[in-house]
Amino acid sequence: MKIGFLGPQGTYTEEALAKVFSPDEHEFISYPTVSDVIEAVDAGEVDKGIVPIENSIEGSVSETLDHLAFDSEVLIEREVLLTIHHHLIGIKGTTASEIKTIISHPQAYAQCRKTLKKVFKEVKVEPAFSTAEAVKSVSEKGDCKVAAIGNAFAAEIYGLEVLIRDISDYPDNTTRFVIIGKELGPRTGYDKTSIICFIGDDRPGKLLEILQEFSYRYINLTKITSRPTKKKFGEYLFFIDMEGHLEDDHIKSALACLRCKLPLVKFLGSYRRSS
Amino acid sequence: MKIGFLGPQGTYTEEALAKVFSPDEHEFISYPTVSDVIEAVDAGEVDKGIVPIENSIEGSVSETLDHLAFDSEVLIEREVLLTIHHHLIGIKGTTASEIKTIISHPQAYAQCRKTLKKVFKEVKVEPAFSTAEAVKSVSEKGDCKVAAIGNAFAAEIYGLEVLIRDISDYPDNTTRFVIIGKELGPRTGYDKTSIICFIGDDRPGKLLEILQEFSYRYINLTKITSRPTKKKFGEYLFFIDMEGHLEDDHIKSALACLRCKLPLVKFLGSYRRSS
Repeated sequence: MKIGFLGPQGTYTEEALAKVFSPDEHEFISYPTVSDVIEAVDAGEVDKGIVPIENSIEGSVSETLDHLAFDSEVLIEREVLLTIHHHLIGIKGTTASEIKTIISHPQAYAQCRKTLKKVFKEVKVEPAFSTAEAVKSVSEKGDCKVAAIGNAFAAEIYGLEVLIRDISDYPDNTTRFVIIGKELGPRTGYDKTSIICFIGDDRPGKLLEILQEFSYRYINLTKITSRPTKKKFGEYLFFIDMEGHLEDDHIKSALACLRCKLPLVKFLGSYRRSS
Repeated sequence: MKIGFLGPQGTYTEEALAKVFSPDEHEFISYPTVSDVIEAVDAGEVDKGIVPIENSIEGSVSETLDHLAFDSEVLIEREVLLTIHHHLIGIKGTTASEIKTIISHPQAYAQCRKTLKKVFKEVKVEPAFSTAEAVKSVSEKGDCKVAAIGNAFAAEIYGLEVLIRDISDYPDNTTRFVIIGKELGPRTGYDKTSIICFIGDDRPGKLLEILQEFSYRYINLTKITSRPTKKKFGEYLFFIDMEGHLEDDHIKSALACLRCKLPLVKFLGSYRRSS
């Protein structure tokens, strides 16, 4: 099977993928952006893909939600939770006092800012598009004055060393990834269903009516978040995750009622919960 | 009055600030991050501050919401809407065919990707921490092969030229900024109130109960969004904007009822609506 992932080699996404699919049995193909991964699955270039959807510190990954909402017909087939361990990575044998510049994805740096401030009085921070790219670029420079924030997986791939372990300011840092494809996940009795509700007009009170459909059927929601429609300022759509499977009667009936009330309800998949 | 803004000079934030306060009458002080601006207001280093809170394409600005939720006691005193016009900016007289590298804040580039792909078959993209920094760095390099995505305001400040106007893929691109300080805005009869609801335990059904308090009093919500608590994966708090002022009886009573139900309701301010 061909599986697309958010690259380059050594990202947290590839690490999450390797947790559930073996690289010996499947072909992993790297794509530069979340949108490229999802487009490759839609186009049938790859059989499945994996992208991050939510992080316990940063919240939702907007690019993933927006692409699933507006530009794709793929389904979520599975979720994968990965604990994020940010390390300071550099050339083997480097000591902290040698480091003058840290290369980092801005979000990773933001998550480690307080810890790093304690270690480094003065250090320059240079941005990178991903943690894996930051690590790769330190490896290419081969300079002890430069270090990167990234994972142990990337340090190994690019022949570098973890200089300081676990530099995140938040001890519980988890990212939720989703495997996307074109199949409905089988009903396991311990499932989750994801949908998007397009509310249409300017009536935020409609959210109450949506929630009542779930409450009426004792459906537990695990997440609800809004995103702009990108058409008109102040207009939103809602991403809702709930416990249950599309083949469960109460879920089927809730979605049917919502479809009567709202201009569009997009089904994003039913899949086994990971906990 | 001293007013802190998200810098460096030439950001969209400074442009929004200049819409409502004159730089001739007040001292504008630049801070490198949203958190630094809010901290400066909390510490009394500046009288007021301005930060972006929401964009019509990208959604909420997480750093602003999180800092207001967890680390600050400032109030929102006013909102400012600014239409965002991204331009391609470079050395005067540069032609598109000369440009080999575009420096950009990753979000600005993401918003112009499709338009730029039509103009440039192959171009390298380098990340910057802000659009203003991208423009500044082109000015420092003084090289026709390099251009930046930014606003006309920054082009003028750094002595550069708008090479291609309005390169955004989205015609309606608006950012909502908030002026923060320590005062409750006066009741004008056309107001908005912002709060944060901490739900506490793992019962997403509680959101329904929250919304019923507003619906019962015919309070119109203009925005609702969730953010992770950063403590436990799957635990959220809700940011709610509503029409009305803290001094309106129905708003006061809704907040009082919510305080009885929830472990914490944080008041973020009442201020005149901008529309």
